[in-house]
Amino acid sequence: MKRAEIIAVGTELLLGQIANTNAQFIAKHLSALGYHHHFQTVVGDNSERLKSALEIASSRSDLIILTGGLGPTKDDLTKEVVAEFVQESLVYHEQSLEYIEQYFIKVNRPMTENNKKQALVIHNAHVLLNKNGMAPGMVYEVKNKQFVLLPGPPKEMIPMVEKELIPYFLKGKEASTIISKELKFFGIGESILETEILDLLENQSNPTIAPLASEGEVMLRVTASASNQQEAEKLIGQAEEKIRERVGQFIYGTNNENLFTVLSSKLKDFKLTISAAESLTGGLFSKRLTDIPGNSSIFKGSVVCYSNEIKQNLLNVPADILNKNGAVSAECAKSLVENIQRLTGSNISISFTGEAGPSTLEDVPVGKVFIGIKIGDSDSIVKEFQFSGTREQIRLSSVKNGANLLIKLINSSFESQDL
Amino acid sequence: MKRAEIIAVGTELLLGQIANTNAQFIAKHLSALGYHHHFQTVVGDNSERLKSALEIASSRSDLIILTGGLGPTKDDLTKEVVAEFVQESLVYHEQSLEYIEQYFIKVNRPMTENNKKQALVIHNAHVLLNKNGMAPGMVYEVKNKQFVLLPGPPKEMIPMVEKELIPYFLKGKEASTIISKELKFFGIGESILETEILDLLENQSNPTIAPLASEGEVMLRVTASASNQQEAEKLIGQAEEKIRERVGQFIYGTNNENLFTVLSSKLKDFKLTISAAESLTGGLFSKRLTDIPGNSSIFKGSVVCYSNEIKQNLLNVPADILNKNGAVSAECAKSLVENIQRLTGSNISISFTGEAGPSTLEDVPVGKVFIGIKIGDSDSIVKEFQFSGTREQIRLSSVKNGANLLIKLINSSFESQDL
Repeated sequence: MKRAEIIAVGTELLLGQIANTNAQFIAKHLSALGYHHHFQTVVGDNSERLKSALEIASSRSDLIILTGGLGPTKDDLTKEVVAEFVQESLVYHEQSLEYIEQYFIKVNRPMTENNKKQALVIHNAHVLLNKNGMAPGMVYEVKNKQFVLLPGPPKEMIPMVEKELIPYFLKGKEASTIISKELKFFGIGESILETEILDLLENQSNPTIAPLASEGEVMLRVTASASNQQEAEKLIGQAEEKIRERVGQFIYGTNNENLFTVLSSKLKDFKLTISAAESLTGGLFSKRLTDIPGNSSIFKGSVVCYSNEIKQNLLNVPADILNKNGAVSAECAKSLVENIQRLTGSNISISFTGEAGPSTLEDVPVGKVFIGIKIGDSDSIVKEFQFSGTREQIRLSSVKNGANLLIKLINSSFESQDL
Repeated sequence: MKRAEIIAVGTELLLGQIANTNAQFIAKHLSALGYHHHFQTVVGDNSERLKSALEIASSRSDLIILTGGLGPTKDDLTKEVVAEFVQESLVYHEQSLEYIEQYFIKVNRPMTENNKKQALVIHNAHVLLNKNGMAPGMVYEVKNKQFVLLPGPPKEMIPMVEKELIPYFLKGKEASTIISKELKFFGIGESILETEILDLLENQSNPTIAPLASEGEVMLRVTASASNQQEAEKLIGQAEEKIRERVGQFIYGTNNENLFTVLSSKLKDFKLTISAAESLTGGLFSKRLTDIPGNSSIFKGSVVCYSNEIKQNLLNVPADILNKNGAVSAECAKSLVENIQRLTGSNISISFTGEAGPSTLEDVPVGKVFIGIKIGDSDSIVKEFQFSGTREQIRLSSVKNGANLLIKLINSSFESQDL
């Protein structure tokens, strides 16, 4: 098995301004690609030190993946140093140069000379197109070593790895096909999930099953290798079946799905429209729904009722409720969800009211949240939650629990009668 | 100035299960402690490879900080490898051993033999007490090298650095002070900014000036070192003045400020309230304003008018405008901003309408956005933009440009008369 290592280039990493999440992302892919991964290095924007890191890495690894330092400024010198190291020149990559020129024409801004530099690539390298930025990546192969250069910004690096680098590595390799499938969970913690499937986690080697937790959710990544795709999919299917037998009720989706894409699909499937009244979440639920393109058919709109004045005047919450029960109350959540549905004429509506913290205004405990849901003509329901964590975590927990509740309620209300 | 580097030990980092946030945290402190920081390494729980990482690090740095591998299991071998490297034995640290024994008595669980191992420290090392876990940290000094061993879990490592390590380093030192200040820019690209101040970037060594770009913004980090804080601040002030002379009109804030915290402060300063009508941004502007705690005094609320129906029914945009000019038009932005102000009674209002893509519905180019702003009784104004990038980038550009416009307009409308 070949050895791979990662060199992240960027003084911002050494200053502690950002964490090296690029290395984390790439590391996840290395074992699936069949590499041992033994070292990661971070080095600043300095050619001497980058050269020394390259020397060390190439003395002990077969694949060296570098991230960062491909931008337009004088600080960006990764490809210059690698080119010198492998004794190649830099040449303009026509397609990338054209793309950069077109970009500046489109945004109607002058292209400064240093932007042209981004289209330079190492002579004889395979170019990885950058569809989310200007600087292309590259793979340079010499003897038994491979050097991969990737841009630093994750929004450019991640799609380049997924859409350009991995297909490049897999091309022409009949030998082993490696396929992964992610199972997405909500409403179960990582340690409980792990306990439930401990024997599967420990005894499986093909497929491997790896739990990963982030942003209040857990996923299991099931990765199989086989001689062909069909065989790998069969292995994954068998493992998935065992997992679903135990904890299937917590699985809401797979792969690139998230709670909001699943909710959107459900609404589209049943030709339903939705609206929201958002107090503590301040627009986050609506933002997450509209992150997804093409949702104008299902999402009518929302009222972000951050002040009591708007709750009262725009959403007709009775002054009585605000005075007696307070804005953070089941009664307020109920009034909000009923009124936003009436106001927008949507089939389904949801409301959020609560205390996101960090401190509290009205003696309401930080993290206390009420979510109201109304489906069609049915009576509205209100659920009370007590979340913990930072303001950001409490707001995120609120909208994710809201989406999860909606998915379950839509399933139970519509699935039996319509399918 | 001495050189420091960080070695994080842990296979979980190489598997991509976690990001190396420990290195980020420690990095932030190194420059304040007066160290140059040139390299970070990640290595797995393997004694041979850890030894090789130690050899490389101690050949080029004076201070080597290791995190992780101090726990009770067989995988944890950092102190064993370092002890062998510096040719010292491991000895029990009585205070830590007692603490571990007490812990197991307290939780009423038997203490297994491997837990005792956590109280072993390198002979002749200064011990850093662990008040949030069992394994103590240590500082071992030999000739001109220092080796610092810290536990891996951030909840143990962070307080140990803050309460044990930094005081140990500062004890008896007059020390040189290093201070940084960040200048935040909007409306100028990284490459143009760099061109404008190229001579400053190239000729400055104290303070250093480093540009950093992220999410459509650029910042300059100005870092000075001097014998005391006052002297360092004076150096930063002189550099800042030169920068402001050239590109000051693009600076909207400093350090931890962002466009939305600056906007919030302005609104508070002048006791103004704001509301928004959001179409393509789908709640993102409201979300960003409510990310900041304590904004209920300035933010009344918003209508997320994603559908034309809501634009017409809730925000009274005339059907005529929607039919003739379309939802993505200056006329629609004007009607939205005037009606949301009327509806909420806020002093200031903003509207967003445009095409976020990735594909277009009504022959409107992707990235075309109209932002309407109304300040008090003044006539509303509408600005047209053509943004590029992904859906996410177009939406982010929209709300950031909106916030930037608001800051400028509030400054010009209120600053002269009220200050």
